[in-house]
Amino acid sequence: MEKVLEYIINNQKRHLEELYDFLRIPSVSSEEQHKQDVLRAAQWLVDDFKRIGIDNVRIIETAGHPLVYAEWNGAGNDAKTILYYGHYDVQPVDPIELWETTPFEPFEKNGKVVARGSADDKGQLFVHLKAVEAYLKTQGGLPVNIKFIIEGEEEAAESHIDEFIEHNPELLKCDSVVVSDTEWFYYGMPSICYGLRGIAYFEMEVIGPNRDLHSGTFGGAVDNPINVLAWMITQIKDRYGRITIPGFYDDVLELTQEERNNFLKLPFNNDEYKKDLDLGELNGEMGYTTLERTWARPTFDLNGIKGGYIGDGQKTVLPSKASAKFSFRLVPNQKATDISKKVVDYITKLAPPTVKVKITPMGIANPVLVDPHSTAVESAIKALNQAFGKDVVFMREGGSIPVVETFTNVLKAPVVLMGLGLPDDNIHSPNESFSIDNFYGGIKASAIFINEFAK
Amino acid sequence: MEKVLEYIINNQKRHLEELYDFLRIPSVSSEEQHKQDVLRAAQWLVDDFKRIGIDNVRIIETAGHPLVYAEWNGAGNDAKTILYYGHYDVQPVDPIELWETTPFEPFEKNGKVVARGSADDKGQLFVHLKAVEAYLKTQGGLPVNIKFIIEGEEEAAESHIDEFIEHNPELLKCDSVVVSDTEWFYYGMPSICYGLRGIAYFEMEVIGPNRDLHSGTFGGAVDNPINVLAWMITQIKDRYGRITIPGFYDDVLELTQEERNNFLKLPFNNDEYKKDLDLGELNGEMGYTTLERTWARPTFDLNGIKGGYIGDGQKTVLPSKASAKFSFRLVPNQKATDISKKVVDYITKLAPPTVKVKITPMGIANPVLVDPHSTAVESAIKALNQAFGKDVVFMREGGSIPVVETFTNVLKAPVVLMGLGLPDDNIHSPNESFSIDNFYGGIKASAIFINEFAK
Repeated sequence: MEKVLEYIINNQKRHLEELYDFLRIPSVSSEEQHKQDVLRAAQWLVDDFKRIGIDNVRIIETAGHPLVYAEWNGAGNDAKTILYYGHYDVQPVDPIELWETTPFEPFEKNGKVVARGSADDKGQLFVHLKAVEAYLKTQGGLPVNIKFIIEGEEEAAESHIDEFIEHNPELLKCDSVVVSDTEWFYYGMPSICYGLRGIAYFEMEVIGPNRDLHSGTFGGAVDNPINVLAWMITQIKDRYGRITIPGFYDDVLELTQEERNNFLKLPFNNDEYKKDLDLGELNGEMGYTTLERTWARPTFDLNGIKGGYIGDGQKTVLPSKASAKFSFRLVPNQKATDISKKVVDYITKLAPPTVKVKITPMGIANPVLVDPHSTAVESAIKALNQAFGKDVVFMREGGSIPVVETFTNVLKAPVVLMGLGLPDDNIHSPNESFSIDNFYGGIKASAIFINEFAK
Repeated sequence: MEKVLEYIINNQKRHLEELYDFLRIPSVSSEEQHKQDVLRAAQWLVDDFKRIGIDNVRIIETAGHPLVYAEWNGAGNDAKTILYYGHYDVQPVDPIELWETTPFEPFEKNGKVVARGSADDKGQLFVHLKAVEAYLKTQGGLPVNIKFIIEGEEEAAESHIDEFIEHNPELLKCDSVVVSDTEWFYYGMPSICYGLRGIAYFEMEVIGPNRDLHSGTFGGAVDNPINVLAWMITQIKDRYGRITIPGFYDDVLELTQEERNNFLKLPFNNDEYKKDLDLGELNGEMGYTTLERTWARPTFDLNGIKGGYIGDGQKTVLPSKASAKFSFRLVPNQKATDISKKVVDYITKLAPPTVKVKITPMGIANPVLVDPHSTAVESAIKALNQAFGKDVVFMREGGSIPVVETFTNVLKAPVVLMGLGLPDDNIHSPNESFSIDNFYGGIKASAIFINEFAK
């Protein structure tokens, strides 16, 4: 183990330079013009797997961008197997004018690499390749078998990895899945995430008169689709911040007192949170703290709305229709398909006879709660603690990583969310960055995890 | 008078062809690329005034498109003076794909001229020029003095005629203002409009967090600006369709029983109205009929709304802001400035401490009620009755013609809204049309009006 860690320290600079190379590829999966770049990033990974000594690596075509699959079975049939997940695609760079540097020319600033994809997820994923490299180059092998499944559609509208997992449970069979695509609670505070919220996303259209009308001629006699849409929106949450859809809370797992106490111990300050967002007051479900509201309580949010004339100046139109996109964040043990049905039923009943209402369910993902006491999580705690010399905290996150639930369900293996991001990494925003300390420390932690998990 | 009417009948075809020429000029005032066309339409009018024998005609520059002013004072100081108002600009043609013919190549179909501007307002305005022509060509003069003020900005975002009227009350001094820019209640039912609603238009912006947030990470703790905007909208009208703003109804003039009875006599059918608009149910202020709601009751309508992500697919954004455009239609004797203040006060008080709310008053116009018993209106009734051989009905309209209120206030002369449009003229829409019967009959009615009003 000492030699492995020594190798990691001695090769830090080179590893960082290799990451820079990886970051230079603009693998924006949602933009057609970057299709070749996405493929180039996949090929770059294949080449790197070969460089570190893994020849069993291949590109797997999907209906969209390909997957990269690699495995090393040298530890034998009796050894455990770790499956690593990550994604090599990145978010678009818009608004480009807000970047201080060129998004695909990595730049070091205040101890961070600034580049699109640095934290989400190239930097976090690359950590594990370099830990594996350290074993192979110093020991000629690892104490565990390893598999990597790396996708190129995590940031795209449509992803095919879930389908692939469902069709290939034998190939991906493992004793634990390691996912590094989450954040620490705070700088210098290594964190294990044990809960993610799910989501149910909808599009709704309210159709009134069969054509745009003059608001002078018709206003007062015809129900205005925007007014109706606004009213419907207000009927989904009550004044205490609770969702009013019948049965919505049926399967919600309440937080335990232990979890609530743990959340209270985290260094979180409502005033700083408000100040950062420039808000006069926060608002959410009555009876819960901000962390509880964002991590462990379901929500209802409008994501978009449009209707009528939205250009400059004024137009006296009574529009024919209005539409909205909205979503519910779900928490364990809500089931996205069940919630989706309840939402559609409720909206359908809510629709007044003055209009037609179309509701279309869009993406869904189930919430996830991982066992915080699995061997894999215990190994991750030791690894992060030793690599960073700090106590590890347990946290949840408010977002969703749909693939985590697929791994849990299909592979029946415990997932470890061993993220290395920081809250100020600006993922999905201009000036995305990744802490170089977390990159170096992450490689060490990954190597120690392998050693601990092998025991 | 007989010779005047005979002349009108003998010259109908030529008059229609002249109107076609006028309609061929694409004088779209709101589109920069048509600036020269707007000017060309003004010049065309100047030339036509000269053709009919009025040399005292000129183009008056404004900060926008010019006014055309013409006068004939041959009746002497003791004779009455009629001021005609109209507009030579037209609406844009979009959506062009819904036109059955080319918008600026007039086309005859089912007894109507199909062309942009045919009813609104070139056809209606041209009627009066041709009536004046009939007098000048057959009698060498008129029994009244006449003035024309014709604008090119009625369909533009900004209009300068009100300013011009306010600065030139002497020039425009008259005994009656004739405006033909309204509709008949029904085909074959000549109508005098005696009431118009006013308007107060606003733009509102609800600003929440200082940046777009990830709805997973922040959803549940931060008030969503779209949700807040929707809630605020629902606080402006109660479940009985009444506006909840304090003092909003203070100056509303209730309909008289006579008016309500008159409205009931008009051939109006709720079921046909619903069918035409493809609506399951109508909705409006409780206790009022559809005609009362659209003609004589104030309203609140959203004209546009936007916020967050409105493109294809889904984006899990908790947007930084949301905005709406909305307007109130006002009725006699509400004052638009008073209502504007009450709206701003109410919205300001309504704004919750979780967001910042900006409300911006935009265009306003006062409602108008003209004396249905003035000499001018009595003359118009006789003129329409004789020209069309039908009983004349009194009606109101739900829209606003701001300049009417300016005429009333500044010139202190009674206005006659002697419209010649029909409800199916498609003004502001594709396939705008103008009844040829109403064009021919309108010229006769205008000529008879001059004779009657001179008495």
